[in-house]
Amino acid sequence: MARDHENHREDVAGRANVEDTPELLAYYDDLGRKGAAALWTVANKIEPWEPVSQSVPMIWRYADLRDDVLRSVDLVTPEKAGRRVIYLDNPGRSDVAAAVGWIYAGLQVMHPGERASAHRHSASAIRFIMEGQGAYTVVDGHKMTLGANDFVLTPNGTWHEHAVASEGTPCIWQDGLDIPLVNALEANFYEVHPDLAQAVTYPVDDMTRTWGNPGLRPGGGDWQKGYSPMFKYEWDRTYEALSGLAAHSDGSPHDGVLMHYMNPVNSGHVMGTLGASMQMLRPGERTKAHRHTGSFLYQVCKGSGHSIINGKRFDWTERDIFCVPAWAWHEHANASDTEDACLFCLNDLPVMEKLGLYREEALAENGGHQPVG
Amino acid sequence: MARDHENHREDVAGRANVEDTPELLAYYDDLGRKGAAALWTVANKIEPWEPVSQSVPMIWRYADLRDDVLRSVDLVTPEKAGRRVIYLDNPGRSDVAAAVGWIYAGLQVMHPGERASAHRHSASAIRFIMEGQGAYTVVDGHKMTLGANDFVLTPNGTWHEHAVASEGTPCIWQDGLDIPLVNALEANFYEVHPDLAQAVTYPVDDMTRTWGNPGLRPGGGDWQKGYSPMFKYEWDRTYEALSGLAAHSDGSPHDGVLMHYMNPVNSGHVMGTLGASMQMLRPGERTKAHRHTGSFLYQVCKGSGHSIINGKRFDWTERDIFCVPAWAWHEHANASDTEDACLFCLNDLPVMEKLGLYREEALAENGGHQPVG
Amino acid sequence: MARDHENHREDVAGRANVEDTPELLAYYDDLGRKGAAALWTVANKIEPWEPVSQSVPMIWRYADLRDDVLRSVDLVTPEKAGRRVIYLDNPGRSDVAAAVGWIYAGLQVMHPGERASAHRHSASAIRFIMEGQGAYTVVDGHKMTLGANDFVLTPNGTWHEHAVASEGTPCIWQDGLDIPLVNALEANFYEVHPDLAQAVTYPVDDMTRTWGNPGLRPGGGDWQKGYSPMFKYEWDRTYEALSGLAAHSDGSPHDGVLMHYMNPVNSGHVMGTLGASMQMLRPGERTKAHRHTGSFLYQVCKGSGHSIINGKRFDWTERDIFCVPAWAWHEHANASDTEDACLFCLNDLPVMEKLGLYREEALAENGGHQPVG
Amino acid sequence: MARDHENHREDVAGRANVEDTPELLAYYDDLGRKGAAALWTVANKIEPWEPVSQSVPMIWRYADLRDDVLRSVDLVTPEKAGRRVIYLDNPGRSDVAAAVGWIYAGLQVMHPGERASAHRHSASAIRFIMEGQGAYTVVDGHKMTLGANDFVLTPNGTWHEHAVASEGTPCIWQDGLDIPLVNALEANFYEVHPDLAQAVTYPVDDMTRTWGNPGLRPGGGDWQKGYSPMFKYEWDRTYEALSGLAAHSDGSPHDGVLMHYMNPVNSGHVMGTLGASMQMLRPGERTKAHRHTGSFLYQVCKGSGHSIINGKRFDWTERDIFCVPAWAWHEHANASDTEDACLFCLNDLPVMEKLGLYREEALAENGGHQPVG
Ligand SMILES: [Fe+2]
Ligand SMILES: [Fe+2]
Ligand SMILES: [Fe+2]
Ligand SMILES: [Fe+2]
Ligand SMILES: [Fe+2]
Ligand SMILES: [Fe+2]
Ligand SMILES: [Fe+2]
Ligand SMILES: [Fe+2]
Repeated sequence: MARDHENHREDVAGRANVEDTPELLAYYDDLGRKGAAALWTVANKIEPWEPVSQSVPMIWRYADLRDDVLRSVDLVTPEKAGRRVIYLDNPGRSDVAAAVGWIYAGLQVMHPGERASAHRHSASAIRFIMEGQGAYTVVDGHKMTLGANDFVLTPNGTWHEHAVASEGTPCIWQDGLDIPLVNALEANFYEVHPDLAQAVTYPVDDMTRTWGNPGLRPGGGDWQKGYSPMFKYEWDRTYEALSGLAAHSDGSPHDGVLMHYMNPVNSGHVMGTLGASMQMLRPGERTKAHRHTGSFLYQVCKGSGHSIINGKRFDWTERDIFCVPAWAWHEHANASDTEDACLFCLNDLPVMEKLGLYREEALAENGGHQPVG
Repeated sequence: MARDHENHREDVAGRANVEDTPELLAYYDDLGRKGAAALWTVANKIEPWEPVSQSVPMIWRYADLRDDVLRSVDLVTPEKAGRRVIYLDNPGRSDVAAAVGWIYAGLQVMHPGERASAHRHSASAIRFIMEGQGAYTVVDGHKMTLGANDFVLTPNGTWHEHAVASEGTPCIWQDGLDIPLVNALEANFYEVHPDLAQAVTYPVDDMTRTWGNPGLRPGGGDWQKGYSPMFKYEWDRTYEALSGLAAHSDGSPHDGVLMHYMNPVNSGHVMGTLGASMQMLRPGERTKAHRHTGSFLYQVCKGSGHSIINGKRFDWTERDIFCVPAWAWHEHANASDTEDACLFCLNDLPVMEKLGLYREEALAENGGHQPVG
Repeated sequence: MARDHENHREDVAGRANVEDTPELLAYYDDLGRKGAAALWTVANKIEPWEPVSQSVPMIWRYADLRDDVLRSVDLVTPEKAGRRVIYLDNPGRSDVAAAVGWIYAGLQVMHPGERASAHRHSASAIRFIMEGQGAYTVVDGHKMTLGANDFVLTPNGTWHEHAVASEGTPCIWQDGLDIPLVNALEANFYEVHPDLAQAVTYPVDDMTRTWGNPGLRPGGGDWQKGYSPMFKYEWDRTYEALSGLAAHSDGSPHDGVLMHYMNPVNSGHVMGTLGASMQMLRPGERTKAHRHTGSFLYQVCKGSGHSIINGKRFDWTERDIFCVPAWAWHEHANASDTEDACLFCLNDLPVMEKLGLYREEALAENGGHQPVG
Repeated sequence: MARDHENHREDVAGRANVEDTPELLAYYDDLGRKGAAALWTVANKIEPWEPVSQSVPMIWRYADLRDDVLRSVDLVTPEKAGRRVIYLDNPGRSDVAAAVGWIYAGLQVMHPGERASAHRHSASAIRFIMEGQGAYTVVDGHKMTLGANDFVLTPNGTWHEHAVASEGTPCIWQDGLDIPLVNALEANFYEVHPDLAQAVTYPVDDMTRTWGNPGLRPGGGDWQKGYSPMFKYEWDRTYEALSGLAAHSDGSPHDGVLMHYMNPVNSGHVMGTLGASMQMLRPGERTKAHRHTGSFLYQVCKGSGHSIINGKRFDWTERDIFCVPAWAWHEHANASDTEDACLFCLNDLPVMEKLGLYREEALAENGGHQPVG
C-alpha cells in the first residue's frame, strides 16, 4: 500500500525522525494487514506546526459569472434542477464542492412566477440578495420579502422554499451552506416537503418585526432553538446601524467597522454552524493584516477596493465574491476617499469557537501590511 | 415578650393547632430566655397559604404632585439635598421607603445648569424622563442626552450623575431603585466620587449606538457585566418597535402588546435586580385579569384609561404612576377607541425569576374580569 | 406622622444635609397627605456607607437547648404541632423568625414511629442530622435514610415529609429554610398533601447513587430544575473528600479546607436561594479574619474551638450553632492540635451572587486577627 | 475535468434530474474554467437522504496487535519515533489516519524508565490504560499516576508528556485524539516544550482529589476553561459508581448502565471535542439496536461478549477495540450470565451536540434486534 511507504521525517527534537529500513518496511506491511500502522510514519504530517489550508484564495467576479447564471434559466427548469444554482468551486476543495473550507456557496437565479419546491435538511443555509425584485422565502410558515443586501436564514431542520412573485423581476442571490461540513460529519438528512410547498401561517416578516428591535424583547417570547428567531436582517437597518457605529467607535484595525449578525436571544451567531457579518470600510480606510482560523467568504455589497490575501492582491467591486482560507494573512482597502465600502462575510466562526479552535494573530512586521508578491 | 404569646391556630390537618396552656406558656418563656421559640406558635403565620402583600394598591396622580415637586426647587438646593427628590411612600411600606414591594421610586426635578454630584452604590437605578429638555446622565464616563419617555440605566456599582444643560428647561424624571431590597439584604455600599463629577470619556450616546441595533452585535464587543451595556433606550425607537409588533402579533390577553427592555447580550432583564417593560394598549383594548408574584410600578407615558387592581378601579392619564403589589389581581383598559395608550413598568422580575419564585395565574371566572367593589 | 420628622443629616459633600425649618416641616406634612415624602429626610439612612446587619452575632449551645427540644415530645404531638420544632430566634430578627439575616433555622425532634404530614411550599429547606438513628425523608417520591451529619434537601415546590422508623431511636436534626426571605418577597405558597403522605416510588437513596458520583454523569440523565437532583449528601463521603482535599491543597486563609455542597449538574449551589458548605479546620488551624455580605449559620459537626465575630469570642463544641451576620468580621480556630474540627454552614450565597451583591474584604491590620473586646 | 461529468440523477420530485446534453456539457466546461459548477450535477450527492459513513465497522483484537505493539520497542526509540504508537487505521479513513469518523486512536507502549518529550497541540487527547504498572502523565504541571482502566485527559493546549517509572513494568495504553477533525478544520498547531520536559508543580493527583468528589465543589475553585479540571478518572471509583447505579436504575435499553465521564464544573463532556463513557452490561444483558450520528470507539475493559453493527456480529473480549460508525445500527450483548462486562467508549458527541447534529433512532422491527447477515 502507498500509505505504508509514507514518511515525513523532521530532524527536530520531539518530532518523528525514523529512517525506513527493510525490517521496518516489513513491519509496516505486517501492521497494514491488521488494519494498523505506525504513527511515526505519519506523525509529522498529521501534527503540523501550523495549519496550511487546502483552499485557494480566490475571487469570483460577478461580471464573469452573471451571464452564466442567467443563462441557466434557459438551460434547465427549476423542476428538473431542484434549484437553479451555479456554485463556487474552489480548486482545492472540489472534492467536497466547497467555496472555502467547509462552506458551500452558489448563485441562484429565479424568474418571476417561479417557485422552488419546499424541503428541509440538517445543513444550515443563508441567502444574501444580489439583485432583482419580488423574491421571497418561506421558513417554517414565515414568509419574508427580500430586497438587495437583505440577509436571510434557513436554519437546519426548518422547512423552506424560495420564489419570485409574478410581478417581480429576475432575481439572483447568493446561497451559503455548511453542506460540506455536515457531510464530513456524516450527519446530513434530507426531506422533500410532502406538499412540495408550505402554507404561510404567520404575518409576512413577523419574525423580524418581533425579534429585530433595539434592546427590546417581545413579551411572552420564548425561543430555545439553536438558531436565531430573527430570520431576516434588512439592509436599511443594518446600514444605518453600521453608520451609527462608525460615528461612535474607532472600529477594528483589521476589519474597519464590523457588526456580526446575531441571534437576539443570546447575542451569539445566527446559526449553530454558520456566522455572518457586515463591515464598513470608511472612505480611504485600509486595514492592517491579521490571520486566524476559520474560513471566510466575502461578498462586496457596496463600493470597490481590494484585499491582499497571503501576499496576493485581489481587486473587487460590487457583487464580487472572494474567500479568505484558514490562517491566511489578509487585509482590506477601500478604493474611494469619499464613499464607504461594505463587505458581507459568511464564516464558520461558530464551529471554531464552540470547538475551542479559534486562534488569531496580527501581522507585526512592515507596519502590519503584507508585501504583495 | 409579646412574641411568646403569638398563636395562629388553624383547624386543618397538617397545620399547627396547639392550644395555649400554662405549661406551654412557661415553656415558651423558658425558650425565649435561650434565644429560641416554638415553631408551632408562628408556623401558620410564616407559612401562609398564599402571599398577601403589605403594599397597598394605589395611584400617584401627576396633577397632584407636580407642583410639590417643582416647589422643592425653591425649598432646597441640590447641594444640600444631595438629590432633590420627592419619593412615593406606600403606606404599607413606609418603614422601608418603598413605593411597592422592595422598589423605591421618586420624582426628581432639576433646573437648567444644575448638576448633582457623582456617586455610586450597590443599589441599581433607572430613570424615566417625564418632562423638560436638556437633561443628561453620565454613567461610568458615558454621557447620554435624555428626552421624554427615554429610559436610562445607572447599574449597581457604576459612577453616575445627572444634570440639565444650561440651555435646557426644568426637567422632571422618575427615579426607580432597588434600595429597599439591597438594604434588606444588608448589602448596600455608598461612595461619593472623589471629584464630585466625572469626566466624559466616550462619544455622547455611544453605548446606545453600539449595542442598540436590531440583530447586530458590535465586532470585538465583549461585555461580561451583570447588566445591559445599552444604558439608554430611546422612546422613538421603542414606540416604533411596539407599533411594528402590534401589527405582527396578537399580544397578550393580560398585557396587550408588551416588550421588555433587555440586555442585548443575553436578552435578559436590563439589570440584575430590576426589570422594565413598555406596553401598548391598542385603541379600545381591555385586558383580562391575572395575578403573579413580583412588584410592579407603572407610569402612564401615553394616553389615558384605567386599571382594576384587586377589585378597585384606578383611572389614569399621562404621567400618573400606580402600583400593582405581589399577587394582586390586575387588568388594564385603554379609554380611547382611536389612540393607543402606553404604560412603562418597573419591576423586580429578575429577582423573582432568578430565585425561582415567579408564579402566575389567570382569572378564570367572569370572563376574566374582576367585579369592581 | 413620626416619619415626617425623620432627619439624618451628614455634613459631607454629596450627602443630604437639610435643616428642618417650619416651612419644610409644613411641606413634609403636605407631601405625607399625598403618599409622598422628601428623599433628603431619609436619604442618608437608606443609603448607608456600608451595611450594618440587624442580626446579632450569637451562639446557641446544644447543651442548653437539647433538653428543651426533647421536652417538646411530651408537650405537643406532631399532629397538633405540624412539626415539633424549636426555632432559633435571633433578637434582631424576631419579627421575621430568623436565626440570621433571612434564614430560618430550627431543631426538630421525632420519636421512632412518628411521621410528619407531607406538604410543599415555595420556601426551600435543608436538613442536617444531629443525632439518632432511623430518620428518613421522602422528597417527591424519593426516600432517603439519614444518619448523623448527613445533609438533605427539600427544594422549593417538592412534596416532602419526615419520619423515624419504628425500630429507630429519637432523632434530632437542624432544619434550615429561606422562609423569611420568601415571605419578605411575598412569594410563599403552602399546600398540604392530599393524602398527608407520599408513596415511595423509587429505590431508596436512588438520587444520591445516580448523581453523587465523582466526575460521572448518568446516561440519559436530564435535569433542568433549579436545584440539585442529588437530594442527600452523605457524611462519610464528604469527610473523605475533605480529608483528600486537605492533603492536596493549602485551603483558604479564611476558611481552612472548605467544600461547597453543589448541584452536580452545574456545580452551582444546591438550591436557588440556599447554599451550604462543610469546612475542616486542620489540627491547630486558626484562620484570618474577613467579612463579606450574606448571612451564615454554622453548626459544629466535629471537634471544638472558637470563632471571633465582630470582636467577640464564641467558644463552640459539637452540635453548637452560631451565626455570622452580613458584613461581620469573623475568624475561626480549632482548639485541638491533634484532631480536625468540622463546621457545616448554611448560607444565602445564591441570593447574594445572583443579585450581584456579594462583596468580600480581608482584614489587613494586626496580622489578620481581630482584637477581642 | 472528471467533475464536470458527474451526474447523480434521481427521479423524485424535488430532486435534481437533469440529463446530460451536448449543450449542457459545454456549459459545464465553461463554468469549470471560471471556478464554478452547476449544482444540479452534484446536488443529490451532496444532499443525501441520510448519512452513509465512510468508516467501516471493524474490530481490532488485542490478541492480534499486542505483540506488534511490544515489538515496536525493539524497532524504534521514543526519541526517534516521538511517540511509539501503533495506530488503528480504518480502511475507509486511511487518508486521515482515523480509526472511525474523525477520531484517531493508537496503542502506545513504554518501558520502565522511558519518557516521551513534552509538547502541546490544538488537538485534544485522552489516554486509557490497558496494562502495566508505573505509567504516569504530566499535564500542565500536574502529575497523575495511572493504573489499568484509568482514564486521563490531555486537553487541547495543555503541555503534556508521558513516562513509566523506572520501577514499573512495560505499559500499554490507548491514545485517542481528535487530530483528524482538527486537521480537517485547519486549526492544528503544535509546539515542542522548550525544555522537552515539565516541572511537576502540584501534589500528585491533586486535580482528581480537588474536583472528583461527589456533590462537592472546592471552595475558591474557579475553573473557566473549556475542558474538565479533573484530569484523571480512576477505575475503582468509576466501577463503584456504575455498580451503585446498576442497583438503583434500570439503565438504557440500548446501552445497559452507562455513565458519561464529565466535566464536574458543568456536567458536560470532558473536553470540547471528545466525550467518553463507561458502560456496564449486566450479567446476561443484551441491548436493543439503535443508531445515531457521531462516531464511537469502544474498548472492552471487563468481560466478553459481542456487538452487532449494521447486521454484522463482532465478538469481543478484554482489551479488544471496535468501532461504531455514524448512523450504523448497533446493539451489544454480554456473553456471561454471572459476570458483568464493561465497555469504555470514546466519541465525538460534543461536536455533534454543539453543532446541533445529533440524531437518534431506535430499531422498531424484530423486537429491536438486527438480523445478522
Ligand atoms: Fe435547502
Ligand atoms: Fe479577519
Ligand atoms: Fe445614585
Ligand atoms: Fe401583570
Ligand atoms: Fe416543609
Ligand atoms: Fe467567611
Ligand atoms: Fe500529544
Ligand atoms: Fe449507541
